[in-house]
Amino acid sequence: MVSKAVAKYVHALHLKKYRLRHGAFLVEGGKSVRELLRSQLTTERLCLTADFADKIQAELPAGVPLDLVSEDELTRLSTLSTNTTALAVARLPPEPPLRPVPGQLLLALDQVRDPGNVGTLIRLADWYGLAGVVCSDTCADPWAPKTVAATMGSFTRVPVWQRNLPAWLGTLPAGLPVYGADLHGDNVHRLSLRPSGVLVMGSESHGLTPEVEAGLTQRLHIPGRGQAESLNVAVSAAILLDNFYRNA
Amino acid sequence: MVSKAVAKYVHALHLKKYRLRHGAFLVEGGKSVRELLRSQLTTERLCLTADFADKIQAELPAGVPLDLVSEDELTRLSTLSTNTTALAVARLPPEPPLRPVPGQLLLALDQVRDPGNVGTLIRLADWYGLAGVVCSDTCADPWAPKTVAATMGSFTRVPVWQRNLPAWLGTLPAGLPVYGADLHGDNVHRLSLRPSGVLVMGSESHGLTPEVEAGLTQRLHIPGRGQAESLNVAVSAAILLDNFYRNA
Repeated sequence: MVSKAVAKYVHALHLKKYRLRHGAFLVEGGKSVRELLRSQLTTERLCLTADFADKIQAELPAGVPLDLVSEDELTRLSTLSTNTTALAVARLPPEPPLRPVPGQLLLALDQVRDPGNVGTLIRLADWYGLAGVVCSDTCADPWAPKTVAATMGSFTRVPVWQRNLPAWLGTLPAGLPVYGADLHGDNVHRLSLRPSGVLVMGSESHGLTPEVEAGLTQRLHIPGRGQAESLNVAVSAAILLDNFYRNA
Repeated sequence: MVSKAVAKYVHALHLKKYRLRHGAFLVEGGKSVRELLRSQLTTERLCLTADFADKIQAELPAGVPLDLVSEDELTRLSTLSTNTTALAVARLPPEPPLRPVPGQLLLALDQVRDPGNVGTLIRLADWYGLAGVVCSDTCADPWAPKTVAATMGSFTRVPVWQRNLPAWLGTLPAGLPVYGADLHGDNVHRLSLRPSGVLVMGSESHGLTPEVEAGLTQRLHIPGRGQAESLNVAVSAAILLDNFYRNA
């Protein structure tokens, strides 16, 4: 059983406003909680079922408040439709300095509103070892429970920033390549791309905002042969990143 | 207002069992319903809000029963958390013959249980103009409302089959390439793949089942440089397909 105060605190962290106010976020499900415990991030509190606590006993950190809860209670604390294992409160990590340098690639997301997509994109950034992910302040919160879950543990490793994207693009050093996906861009299969600069992905419904498009130095197109009008944003990013890294 | 009988029928189609029994499925949301009306599929019934009916008046087919409903009523009929536009009942299309031939690529899905992933994969198959998608009978139903929504209209164009996958792979002509994603496979960047045969994608949690793995002729690996253990199944399929089609 958790106290009323703890239950209130955990429920507050379902919302971005309170995540920012408290500097904390939720990690839900056994797999993600284990990734958290193995990482550099600070765990503030754990709520575990007795079975799961048993299973990961050797991994439990000393000095972190731990509540044993029933599956029903855990599910009520959680945003998941059922949670039979674990929930943790973690500290939001301090933002590392954001300094784009030639020879490193950053992924920037413009208005990607679906938390599942943002999480899948963070996971993808981890796969290719990108320098990090810059989210526009109109994206889904990278620390929302659904986003964290979709990263499949990559939330512990990938630096993430939230910025006014057009304003940030305006501060980039001249000569740094800024790529964006565009149906009328250059065929990626005919280019020999190097992972350096910024790759900007737009929302599925609206594409890149005009202010962001104005900051691009090159537009990239993925050639298709069928009749679909577009691809899912994480799918497009994956194909583009693979084209950057195949020559690296 | 729809009659009680219609409401009952629509609700039944939320479930696979009744979709099969009635040979019909649901299409939800304005964008998908418009794709349906433009396609070769048969529309059996429409439920539209008055505003949306007005908007697409020129596209409405003659002779299809049409109910005008409030947003509240539409949401109650729908599996979506809100539906302010449209819902249609469509006939399940007859399965075309499934005959893998050299020079065409089929995508096969082994135990992909998330309907959003299955839908995104069908959309991807449409983008690259694949011959179709073969779903194992342990996949999410390709005609489930969430799957249909995630295809973003591609459900109207991509042939889809449901099969016992290991049994079907056993019937393929000798010499037809059968590719599968595998962390220990050949680096796709070092191969010159041609889109011919079958590409099998496994579930995220369990990979390919041993019976399916036994049917592969080549294992493919996407080289990463970071620390993520794996990629989302639709993301992996996208990268592999782009590697098949970049030389085609």
